[in-house]
Amino acid sequence: MTLTQADLERARDRLRGAVRETPCATSFALGRRHGGEVRLKLENVQVTGSFKARGAGNLLRRLVEIDPDVRVVAASAGNHAQGVALHAGSLGLSAKIVMPVNAPVVKVSATRAAGAEAVLFGTSYDEAYEEAKRIEEEEGATFIHPFDDPYVIAGQATVAMEILAQFPEVRRIVVPVGGAGLLAGTVLAVKSYAPHVEVVAVESLAAPSLSASLEAGAPTQVPLGSTMADGIRVRKIGALPFEIVRDAVASCVTVDDEALSLAMLHLLEVEKTVAEAAGAAGVAAMLVDAIPADGVPTAIIVSGGNVDVNLLGRVIDHGLYTSKRTLRLHGRLPDVPGNLAEVLNTVARVGANVLEIHHDRLSGADLPGRILISLVLETRDAEHAESVEAALSALGFHEDARR
Amino acid sequence: MTLTQADLERARDRLRGAVRETPCATSFALGRRHGGEVRLKLENVQVTGSFKARGAGNLLRRLVEIDPDVRVVAASAGNHAQGVALHAGSLGLSAKIVMPVNAPVVKVSATRAAGAEAVLFGTSYDEAYEEAKRIEEEEGATFIHPFDDPYVIAGQATVAMEILAQFPEVRRIVVPVGGAGLLAGTVLAVKSYAPHVEVVAVESLAAPSLSASLEAGAPTQVPLGSTMADGIRVRKIGALPFEIVRDAVASCVTVDDEALSLAMLHLLEVEKTVAEAAGAAGVAAMLVDAIPADGVPTAIIVSGGNVDVNLLGRVIDHGLYTSKRTLRLHGRLPDVPGNLAEVLNTVARVGANVLEIHHDRLSGADLPGRILISLVLETRDAEHAESVEAALSALGFHEDARR
Repeated sequence: MTLTQADLERARDRLRGAVRETPCATSFALGRRHGGEVRLKLENVQVTGSFKARGAGNLLRRLVEIDPDVRVVAASAGNHAQGVALHAGSLGLSAKIVMPVNAPVVKVSATRAAGAEAVLFGTSYDEAYEEAKRIEEEEGATFIHPFDDPYVIAGQATVAMEILAQFPEVRRIVVPVGGAGLLAGTVLAVKSYAPHVEVVAVESLAAPSLSASLEAGAPTQVPLGSTMADGIRVRKIGALPFEIVRDAVASCVTVDDEALSLAMLHLLEVEKTVAEAAGAAGVAAMLVDAIPADGVPTAIIVSGGNVDVNLLGRVIDHGLYTSKRTLRLHGRLPDVPGNLAEVLNTVARVGANVLEIHHDRLSGADLPGRILISLVLETRDAEHAESVEAALSALGFHEDARR
Repeated sequence: MTLTQADLERARDRLRGAVRETPCATSFALGRRHGGEVRLKLENVQVTGSFKARGAGNLLRRLVEIDPDVRVVAASAGNHAQGVALHAGSLGLSAKIVMPVNAPVVKVSATRAAGAEAVLFGTSYDEAYEEAKRIEEEEGATFIHPFDDPYVIAGQATVAMEILAQFPEVRRIVVPVGGAGLLAGTVLAVKSYAPHVEVVAVESLAAPSLSASLEAGAPTQVPLGSTMADGIRVRKIGALPFEIVRDAVASCVTVDDEALSLAMLHLLEVEKTVAEAAGAAGVAAMLVDAIPADGVPTAIIVSGGNVDVNLLGRVIDHGLYTSKRTLRLHGRLPDVPGNLAEVLNTVARVGANVLEIHHDRLSGADLPGRILISLVLETRDAEHAESVEAALSALGFHEDARR
């Protein structure tokens, strides 16, 4: 099936009132860095917290046009599950979402609350997928693919259609890529309405399936590494998306988890918005200069916001550590009466804040006369951290090489 | 000076292009809880990260109309400083912002980056204020008050004017109150355009200056307690704001830091947006049922988003702890070879994640035969936490009463 402009417009019409038109917000900070306007298309505040609600919404509505009593089944423990469950619930369809048994309780509950049946099966996505295909076959339910489907792709295309209307000056759209449903939709929208706009894909280093497939000239399976970006950790790009994007992507850049962490923190601190790691991929690419700072008016799709708050806390901790706003010191101090109090006085005097302290006289690692001390301090920035280290040094504190 | 509808409209015109029209986003989660539509007016994504940019922008533009070479001075280490600095910078005015010497470096840098002069003076807001008044007198600069000024109030009124246009069905607006500039602006906008809309004020328990003043019938100074909500930690409501709001506020509710923390976490997790504590006050009031769940269409002003990311990390930690998604256990275990390994195996088997472990054989607090153990675990929810505790109990783990 070839997707036409009319298919995209039918998707837009079907989704009216069923999903949000999300903001396309100017980022002054990224704009200064880029030398031209940068806007963030905030699909993290889409219903269900991700763009996936668009594709699922379009496909389910299309299925209902054909058969009002259609039953659907999907396999996902992530954003696709929430998208299918939401629309199945509001359309009154019977829906089964197969999830691995170790899926987060909160996702299982959300799926059920939306009115779908959560089927817990297997211990991996692959096993859940097999079970969903079994249900498709044995129960006559229609399988809802997360990306390799023309209606899903047409639904995702509405993101870029909105960008073109909200930000007509745009000349580049940056898109996170996993299975490539969103990327394919973006390419189609640009081809139909604004062929002068270039599309840049951003993949995770842990799942570089687009670059591998572009190189091989066909969808190619890649081994999966570890990444926070579960939303784009996909082993193989979809066949239909690949056909759509293969000659249409201006470039494909790859980001690692360090860049994703930096981008999530930037979004929190500066843009005041919460993105999941996959959703932050486009911003990550800009922050590590993988996208040229050439001033070309750029829209970055922040594709989702469903991040476990525990992970978010760790991203903050890591960001504070790398930017020297948390200082960890571990070392030795002369064992002189009052010296520990003096350390704390010194820390207070230089304006740092003690988060954690361990003082160990019993380790046995040292001769008598020295004590082990570990400090975690809150500091303002690298410069402040250095002044704290200097002040402690002056008290005879010797830092261990190993931190 | 009496503020008229024309003053509000002039403020709106002056601010066009100088500040953002911020989103007024539907909150499905709060709407379900409330039994009717709830929208969040997201002033946390306003330029400078707070509504303060509106009031400062209107007053500075008004001053320039009278004297293009006006010089201005303000005292603030917070959102007002950023608002004055931004507009002074873009209008090319000479501006001095007096801040206490212990002001966060990042705020000092931001003020300077905007083109204002940051004057570090004194160790408290009061001392900075005195210095600003001295500069006003000796250097002929105009003092920019953060709330007790008609042009500042008219600027803040544009928040509610936008709400009325974006959400015409609104029947209640919930507003955080400190000095009451935003509250007064909201009251004026409602009186002018939508007198059927009720205005609810939310103050911090640590600075209940509105309720004290309403009770006394005049602006009344209150002792300040400790709170994360520095943005509304104001000792005394402004005289002009008080005159405007005294007979016009439907109710004034008070929230504590526990509620503010809950609200900040709700905004992060569910609404995918970052609010400072003061900015989350309205949501806090709704979450602790201080605002009746009566289905009345309600807009909550999320007034600012400038929260230190370190504080945000601690709010997350606290929220995880209170919702039993972090479980801290401290207690005693029989000192049997392999028992510690068995603890870790058990934790893994029940699907919890070890964040921290301390194992102390040397404390001396116990007879031989028992060891002290402290565990910090990541759990899914209260139910999961209980199942973890039960599994550890079965190994002979005895929890201390004191945590």
